[in-house]
Amino acid sequence: MSASPLRIGIAGLGTVGVGVVRLLRANADLIAARAGRPIGVVAVAARARHRERGIDVSDLRWHDDATELARDPDLDVVVELIGGQEGAARALVTGALAAGRPVVTANKALIAVHGAELAALAERGRTPLAFEAAVAGGIPVIKALREGLAADRLTRVGGILNGTCNYILTTMRESGRDFGPILAEAQALGYAEADPSTDIDGIDTAHKLAILAALAFGRPVDFASVHVEGIRGIAALDIAFAAELGYRIKLLGIARLTEAGVEARVHPCLVPRTAPISQVEGVFNAVFAEGDFVGRVMLEGRGAGAGPTACAVVADLIDIARGTLVPVWGANADSLSRVVSVPMAQLSGDYYLRLHVRDRPGVIAEIAAVLRDCGVSLKSMLQHGEAAGEAVPIVLVTHTTRESALRAAISSIAALDVVLRVPTMIRIEAG
Amino acid sequence: MSASPLRIGIAGLGTVGVGVVRLLRANADLIAARAGRPIGVVAVAARARHRERGIDVSDLRWHDDATELARDPDLDVVVELIGGQEGAARALVTGALAAGRPVVTANKALIAVHGAELAALAERGRTPLAFEAAVAGGIPVIKALREGLAADRLTRVGGILNGTCNYILTTMRESGRDFGPILAEAQALGYAEADPSTDIDGIDTAHKLAILAALAFGRPVDFASVHVEGIRGIAALDIAFAAELGYRIKLLGIARLTEAGVEARVHPCLVPRTAPISQVEGVFNAVFAEGDFVGRVMLEGRGAGAGPTACAVVADLIDIARGTLVPVWGANADSLSRVVSVPMAQLSGDYYLRLHVRDRPGVIAEIAAVLRDCGVSLKSMLQHGEAAGEAVPIVLVTHTTRESALRAAISSIAALDVVLRVPTMIRIEAG
Repeated sequence: MSASPLRIGIAGLGTVGVGVVRLLRANADLIAARAGRPIGVVAVAARARHRERGIDVSDLRWHDDATELARDPDLDVVVELIGGQEGAARALVTGALAAGRPVVTANKALIAVHGAELAALAERGRTPLAFEAAVAGGIPVIKALREGLAADRLTRVGGILNGTCNYILTTMRESGRDFGPILAEAQALGYAEADPSTDIDGIDTAHKLAILAALAFGRPVDFASVHVEGIRGIAALDIAFAAELGYRIKLLGIARLTEAGVEARVHPCLVPRTAPISQVEGVFNAVFAEGDFVGRVMLEGRGAGAGPTACAVVADLIDIARGTLVPVWGANADSLSRVVSVPMAQLSGDYYLRLHVRDRPGVIAEIAAVLRDCGVSLKSMLQHGEAAGEAVPIVLVTHTTRESALRAAISSIAALDVVLRVPTMIRIEAG
Repeated sequence: MSASPLRIGIAGLGTVGVGVVRLLRANADLIAARAGRPIGVVAVAARARHRERGIDVSDLRWHDDATELARDPDLDVVVELIGGQEGAARALVTGALAAGRPVVTANKALIAVHGAELAALAERGRTPLAFEAAVAGGIPVIKALREGLAADRLTRVGGILNGTCNYILTTMRESGRDFGPILAEAQALGYAEADPSTDIDGIDTAHKLAILAALAFGRPVDFASVHVEGIRGIAALDIAFAAELGYRIKLLGIARLTEAGVEARVHPCLVPRTAPISQVEGVFNAVFAEGDFVGRVMLEGRGAGAGPTACAVVADLIDIARGTLVPVWGANADSLSRVVSVPMAQLSGDYYLRLHVRDRPGVIAEIAAVLRDCGVSLKSMLQHGEAAGEAVPIVLVTHTTRESALRAAISSIAALDVVLRVPTMIRIEAG
């Protein structure tokens, strides 16, 4: 191997950063063969130089300020693993691209929020900006959408994009227990962060979905238009009712290209128990893509963790070492389509509603009348519990209806005297 | 779009060839945006110029001899869709590469058998040779292995690679009927060829597995060392017994990198009913890959058909238009590893055996003694049917054993007086 090494600098030595160093060292020969040249870490920016990380960093140049990596003259590529959509991460990536230095990042928030601006910088200098690790960890889904499925007009993309939520929902189903204690357990096991809101409120999924939708539909990334709901409102009762109806509950990110424009949304879904996406359990992720010619493709694997994420980072580095240059969003900025985003109220679908009502005669008739007046038609109803006069849960499943009509119906139902709490609404998806 | 068009010539206007023409025309704008330049068919080589194909070919240069495409000076890329490992397909691809002209092919047999030689030609001229369409149709699995998972040392790769076999096995399970009539039905529906042997005898799967194994393990493609068995010997009875034991029967291609070398084999397998690969039914394909860092990744989709296969061909064309050049087998020939192939007798695994025996006292003891003498230990046994004195099926499931020991046991068992037919052996895989 006579070619000169690709010299990389890593900003951020957390789990993933250490994973990248380990992987580059463990598979050095194989990576050099595939990249056509060795890939070596020569500089690092992180706090706490002397923290024990299980890897030897003594031969690396150390920067206390990450943004210095953008200016280090003896680097070929900057790997940004700091995270966060602003601050040092944004400054480093912007600075490196402005200086014409290739960037590899795992930062989904940064790409989802500032991806259009960063792509413009990258395009101007014909500088690679790669982010395979930003979505679904070890599953090469960015490459699949941007290159593997580039010939087709995709009409739907999405999946299970957050392992923490999928672990919690899977464990709730298996144990029959409620959200709170399972979240606490996931935190103790390291599957959920101390502050879990980015994961469980759906924001992380929304970042990833915005990226997938931009690639699938060839349009500028648009995080602001993604509708986001998380899983805090899912009760053990909902999971049990869903099972009784033949469904599992999953947090999905779904983006569709319709005649009206692009619809992008993150929310819990009832998915048929037999649908392939329902079989994706625990911390696993899955991404589906559907196109006119290709039909449906689904990719599954580990969406997080040091090993899988490091594989994605290093795959990007190998591409850069090989000299591969693909437009950041699959096409140059002036070739991206300007298709509009569609608001949620225009969505049509089937819905699951859980109400708590006083168990007395005429309740069903009252609720049914509201639904009829709003133009919502019922497919099925479940009612359990017999304690007369007490609160009982009722589950309604609608036929396909406009979300705006359903929302109007929910407001009216919530105002009924016999209805004791704000109804729980979960959308139903084919998978 | 001011860049000059990429001019392609297609050899073979069957289902896939027509699909490529249709796709390039239907998605011309999108493809031009992603490729950075228009991609246009300018020449075609096929028999029967005036056959009705549902597409207008009047503006294309027509060659009666496919190998002329290698010499047509007004072409940038040759797309070989003739098929077959020798003859016109091989002559065309060899001629085009020798002339420094990029080639895209869907020809798994050609690549599996002559891929090392063709890669050497391509490498010498730094000429792209792409074959995404050769394995698993619309699923971008070649790209996933060669680029997406390039950082990891993969240790296992394979999957359900033949839609015809998976359709037959799925339909046998769902209907309880036997192989023969289901095959006839699949032929009538166009899911199986008039001469089905390439599919049902496992050869097509073996071609694809040889390609996947070469990419996954970074070694020269070696079709000759793949062990191949098909599905003709699978009876409805086996599928029923498998179900009773908690398994489904799938034709898998599996390649493993072990300390002894590479083991590559195609045969029917009992797979746990709950394993993800068991959920892949009908004409769908799935490919799994396992690595030290990435864990397990699985990709599913349509493995054949005009649309999916055309998507793969055109994705390769987009890569070529973009100027992407990746070594054919993921690394240059001199960087490929020389790891040896392991013969089947060295395999270890769990096995399912179906015997037909005379139903009389002492039969089990006799069989058990043979197994003990060969060092094969039993995990479980199933026996149904009570008609004394008549032939009854017995199913045995072994603990993990050497295939050589099991084969010796089968020979001895087949020679027993009480055993009425050659025993059926099916290997058990975790999925």
